[in-house]
Amino acid sequence: MDSRVEKHAEVIVDHSVAVEEGDNVVVSAPFVAEDLVVALYELLGERGANPTWWAGSDRAKRALLMASDPDEFSAPEHVEAAVKEADVFINIRASENTNETGDVPPEINTAYRQARQDIREEIMGSRWVLTQYPASGHAQKAEMSTEAYEEFVWDAVSKDWEEQRELQEKMVEILDPADEVRIQSGETTDITMSIDGMITANDYAKRNLPGGEVFTAPVPDSVEGVVYFDKPLMAQGREVEGVRLEFSEGEVVDHSAEKNEEVLTQVLETDPGARRLGELGIGMNRDIDEFTYNMLFDEKMGDTVHLALGRAYDKNVGENQEQNDSAIHMDMIVDMSEDSYIEVDGKVVQRNGTFFWED
Amino acid sequence: MDSRVEKHAEVIVDHSVAVEEGDNVVVSAPFVAEDLVVALYELLGERGANPTWWAGSDRAKRALLMASDPDEFSAPEHVEAAVKEADVFINIRASENTNETGDVPPEINTAYRQARQDIREEIMGSRWVLTQYPASGHAQKAEMSTEAYEEFVWDAVSKDWEEQRELQEKMVEILDPADEVRIQSGETTDITMSIDGMITANDYAKRNLPGGEVFTAPVPDSVEGVVYFDKPLMAQGREVEGVRLEFSEGEVVDHSAEKNEEVLTQVLETDPGARRLGELGIGMNRDIDEFTYNMLFDEKMGDTVHLALGRAYDKNVGENQEQNDSAIHMDMIVDMSEDSYIEVDGKVVQRNGTFFWED
Repeated sequence: MDSRVEKHAEVIVDHSVAVEEGDNVVVSAPFVAEDLVVALYELLGERGANPTWWAGSDRAKRALLMASDPDEFSAPEHVEAAVKEADVFINIRASENTNETGDVPPEINTAYRQARQDIREEIMGSRWVLTQYPASGHAQKAEMSTEAYEEFVWDAVSKDWEEQRELQEKMVEILDPADEVRIQSGETTDITMSIDGMITANDYAKRNLPGGEVFTAPVPDSVEGVVYFDKPLMAQGREVEGVRLEFSEGEVVDHSAEKNEEVLTQVLETDPGARRLGELGIGMNRDIDEFTYNMLFDEKMGDTVHLALGRAYDKNVGENQEQNDSAIHMDMIVDMSEDSYIEVDGKVVQRNGTFFWED
Repeated sequence: MDSRVEKHAEVIVDHSVAVEEGDNVVVSAPFVAEDLVVALYELLGERGANPTWWAGSDRAKRALLMASDPDEFSAPEHVEAAVKEADVFINIRASENTNETGDVPPEINTAYRQARQDIREEIMGSRWVLTQYPASGHAQKAEMSTEAYEEFVWDAVSKDWEEQRELQEKMVEILDPADEVRIQSGETTDITMSIDGMITANDYAKRNLPGGEVFTAPVPDSVEGVVYFDKPLMAQGREVEGVRLEFSEGEVVDHSAEKNEEVLTQVLETDPGARRLGELGIGMNRDIDEFTYNMLFDEKMGDTVHLALGRAYDKNVGENQEQNDSAIHMDMIVDMSEDSYIEVDGKVVQRNGTFFWED
């Protein structure tokens, strides 16, 4: 067993989800991540927890989706029942082909997601973590050898998360009491939003491993302006590139994409909340220093901002504020490394990717 | 996709567990069987069923068992809850190393099984099937190439099961009303038992795929004599060879094994029911024509008898009869091909592996 895998398992069990004796644990992972699951099972056994492994197979999922009648999707009672009794969810992403579900029609994906929304919400109300195991598919996506990608992933997860938490707390203290945020980048992005009454969260690898962002929710009807997302995103197994969104009174009033625009259109039509923003995130992890076309990593980079269409996280929404609700939550990234700034209540907190305290 | 895999999936879905619209299905399978799971998911999607895939990983299970305190095992509530809500269980056995759990101490295995007995009983009260996917580990065990083993397995499962049912019905008609059964083989086996008031079942691939046996339960305290099992069996990940059991008033009063006797001893000490027989089975599948050291196949061979220590199946036990109860059910095979006979109420129904109607 690679000692980096054992370290990864330790961070998950002891830091991210803090497993306790008697915890009922669900591990969701494709088989290519078996080494990490074996390392987890050993630790979970030592801690007196009860794990079960749900196989994440994109091939099987594709076969099901392609054969099903999307009007008949429902939340399976046996999965719901298990989710209700589980205390901890460890979701391991890994792939040997990131396009494995790429030919499933978007409307089928959407129907499937909608049918399972209650299950997702139940999970998000528990202790959960999403992490990555380095396999060939995401390595290819990142234009890396699997060997180099392993190093990239395991370096990123085995960080001093307490130190990272402290660094990020600076930004939490700026955003949490603030009202207006403006994101400006080149000729293509100039967007403002209110975060008044919202709660800024500090992600130091509790729910995402690697962590490394602070995030909050925009007031749903406050978003105004235009944003162009520099980096492609994967939606419904397909790559959507060059997304441009125009907002008025919080709603997407115009949209386009340079590649797979129909996927974007489908996402926006999921439900009314899919046309509004549910998250504003600021990447602050300086150890992630290259784009790998994987949101879990890219959105944490120190010179990026991300906005998500769809559902806002419960913890970001203040008592007297409206929570944007949707079956989707789709993150999109703005590269802030050049000709860009983040302004909070009129003060520039980051310019060209450099935070003011880094100057 | 190999068309033999698609055929295998069809037999499972349409014959063995007869999936209906809306069924909640659990597929338990190791990843090496992914092709079969993909074929199943396609059919389950077409039928409007809701499948979930539980990863059967012996490596992960071993890691858990080796690290756990066996006094602390419990039935995990999230697995129990899922099992209660599921309608159908498809259990696919496949292995790349049949010894993967062979170094787990027997007492840990036993404690783990005991903690999960209610879960197994819940499953056995539902529609379930146990089948085999041909992978390298069981091929090696069978001393076959993987290619040859694939042919062996897929030939065995894609049979005309209605024709097989009719053939076996002859034996059901003999055993069902009978009282005494005597199994005699060479110098080493001479055992008698009563099956009075018990119910003989016809296995034509509903619960085991391949099927091909008729089976009933001995009256628990009626078993007398000595039996030597010619074929090794896998118990707790280890091979137990040359098992000899002596029965008096239904109980094992003496036992020995030529290899891994301590595993046999541990099995017998599981609970009081583990020292009594729970099943008498007569193999009747002439298409399985060689031993592959895999009980699912070997016990169906036309010139074998098998006896199981431990729990009797509900369906075999007549209204006024006692059901042998145990956390174990361990099948063991007697080769009846030479110098052997099966006698039912004083009449020889099979001699040297040939049924009387085959003469």
